Amino acid sequence: MSKNFEHLLSRRTQNMKNNAIRNILKVVSQPGMISLAGGIPAEESFPLEQMYVINEAVLNKYGADALQYDLTEGFTPFRHALVDYVARKGIHVTHDQLMVFNGSQSVLDTIAKILITPGDNVALESPSYLGAISAFNAYEPNYVSIETDENGIVPESLDNLLATNTIKFIYLVTTFQNPTGRTLSLERREAIADIVKKHNALVVEDDPYGALRFRGEPVPPLYTYAPANVIYSSTLSKIFAPGLRLGFCTAPELLRDWLNTAKQGADLHTNTYAQALATEYLTGGYIDEQLPRIIDLYRPRQEAMLNAMDAYLPDTYKWEQPEGGMFIWVEGPNGVDAEDIYWKAVENKVAFVPGKFFYLNDGEGLGTMRLNFTKINEATIENAIKTLGEVIHQYG
Amino acid sequence: MSKNFEHLLSRRTQNMKNNAIRNILKVVSQPGMISLAGGIPAEESFPLEQMYVINEAVLNKYGADALQYDLTEGFTPFRHALVDYVARKGIHVTHDQLMVFNGSQSVLDTIAKILITPGDNVALESPSYLGAISAFNAYEPNYVSIETDENGIVPESLDNLLATNTIKFIYLVTTFQNPTGRTLSLERREAIADIVKKHNALVVEDDPYGALRFRGEPVPPLYTYAPANVIYSSTLSKIFAPGLRLGFCTAPELLRDWLNTAKQGADLHTNTYAQALATEYLTGGYIDEQLPRIIDLYRPRQEAMLNAMDAYLPDTYKWEQPEGGMFIWVEGPNGVDAEDIYWKAVENKVAFVPGKFFYLNDGEGLGTMRLNFTKINEATIENAIKTLGEVIHQYG
Repeated sequence: MSKNFEHLLSRRTQNMKNNAIRNILKVVSQPGMISLAGGIPAEESFPLEQMYVINEAVLNKYGADALQYDLTEGFTPFRHALVDYVARKGIHVTHDQLMVFNGSQSVLDTIAKILITPGDNVALESPSYLGAISAFNAYEPNYVSIETDENGIVPESLDNLLATNTIKFIYLVTTFQNPTGRTLSLERREAIADIVKKHNALVVEDDPYGALRFRGEPVPPLYTYAPANVIYSSTLSKIFAPGLRLGFCTAPELLRDWLNTAKQGADLHTNTYAQALATEYLTGGYIDEQLPRIIDLYRPRQEAMLNAMDAYLPDTYKWEQPEGGMFIWVEGPNGVDAEDIYWKAVENKVAFVPGKFFYLNDGEGLGTMRLNFTKINEATIENAIKTLGEVIHQYG
Repeated sequence: MSKNFEHLLSRRTQNMKNNAIRNILKVVSQPGMISLAGGIPAEESFPLEQMYVINEAVLNKYGADALQYDLTEGFTPFRHALVDYVARKGIHVTHDQLMVFNGSQSVLDTIAKILITPGDNVALESPSYLGAISAFNAYEPNYVSIETDENGIVPESLDNLLATNTIKFIYLVTTFQNPTGRTLSLERREAIADIVKKHNALVVEDDPYGALRFRGEPVPPLYTYAPANVIYSSTLSKIFAPGLRLGFCTAPELLRDWLNTAKQGADLHTNTYAQALATEYLTGGYIDEQLPRIIDLYRPRQEAMLNAMDAYLPDTYKWEQPEGGMFIWVEGPNGVDAEDIYWKAVENKVAFVPGKFFYLNDGEGLGTMRLNFTKINEATIENAIKTLGEVIHQYG
């Protein structure tokens, strides 16, 4: 008899079903496909040569400690190194206010675990980061949208929402957002800080891309305007190596204690060796050389994409010019369904993500597209956008 | 205003409260304490010197792939290496039937996530591994006990339980169990395999210690007797390095698909670099030299403990002689509460774990103790047991 065990599945798996986007993106791995669909760093951005020295330093300095069980909250030298790293962003905390997780995905999962009872409201930008939704889904929340424009969420919309609903937390990617590349403006940060303080609300500020700024002035994290109301989460995935799975957060004390309890049950602690490597990367001066290199790698790729869009996309298509990050967000004219363009583009060996998948409701963002520029070089980017332009012109 | 956010906590946190054992064990970190309370490998068991070469080999062989995002199910070369490793235990699977997690703790968390709806029954040995209970608690199960003796769970008890209750899964540490050191006998494995097949039940077989055999013949995993009804989970924590957080499992296909979906939402994937290190450790011949060294390190420590127990513990105290693992389980006479002995022992700078904390119900296992012998050397072990014997004699 073939065993199936479908009857053993928990109720929450109903909420974790593979989503439509994963199905349409299956073709992206076809040979010869030029993909603007991903959201992953270029391999050339990794400090591969330096890893030989960094590894040796870790073994010399930490020895067996780098291989042993460690604290749930994180490897102490790494948390000290993170204190200095986040201070550059204007976040001033002590090492015991920082917790290390298996990538920021695991920060989001653990936050959802301690906060969401099935049916609770979680407020999202529109469009929003899909990975967060997939972390939260397992805990069966109800999502509510906050009105969003090119400067991020609209303060009045948030104020209304908090005045009329019980919201467990508000999830925001505040800088170079995924999927839109948008940055919540300084004025909006101040306004939103006032609003969440007024309502004693909790924000989860996810900041994976903030360090990837190609132009313009850095904007302080929302956390700095309302530290008692914000869980600030970030990652080393875009500035060191995503394969090491190192995310971290700082949170109000009571929530930190619960995050710690939840993490202990979920995985005991994060990889000690990876944390030791990251400690050396941060404190050994490597990041100070590598981060400018990463930015110098991505800036011309973004410029190549923007230039090619100017040259090859019709005037009816609009896009913003984010000052950093990994994505450009395109909005086609009314009546366009970017999934139609997607299938035509894929026939011509170019892939991207139709933006409608980042919205909560069917019918939203039909004409939008997310284009990634970090993974391929300038010439390939120009070819891809040229092809995309041809497909769009044919589509009419 | 001080923000607290206690009102934001999810219902499940009620089930995740810090347990009593963590509180009583706080004193273990006092200076000068000799601890038999832990369950962690000796630092001398790590292949520290070899790590220099292993690291270099990983960077040479896998380059940027070892630092990049990777598959949720695990790094493909590592899963191939695990195929050969589990074949030594009699488990014959292909690499796509194996999944890698952040330690076996994360295997347990993810299994619970996809299977437990609040209130579902999970069947446990008595006593049982506390880490598993802390992983499961977040999903709000109801626990039921299976009768257990020195040969593991009693088949008739399991048969009755499955005949009269709906059980989501049965959680067993089948070899050198934590906390008892007991191994489910060969006859019992066969009987239990028949029972779970008959009821189409699901077993989670956790096997962290099976490779740490000092004497006697290996017993095939329960999985080998009922592969369609068992999720087999193991770890490299005790045979390589726990700080790398590498657990793995094989599961029936439908459950594997759901584990994968759940893991993608929880942490995307396990540390690629750690998996690459482990690949080299397994395929480069390192494990074949290191595992005998680990066993040669622990065997005399266990012997020293058993000899000292013979010499210093009263005849009214009983213990078994496990053929491997990390623990010896002691049972005092009726009327003894080992927590009283614990506090007296701690005053004399020796710590262990009172066994009652591994039972589901108050009043069970009052006179039991779990003693770990892997972390300290033979002379220190003898001193600790001598002190423990003196404390017990004074306790009367």
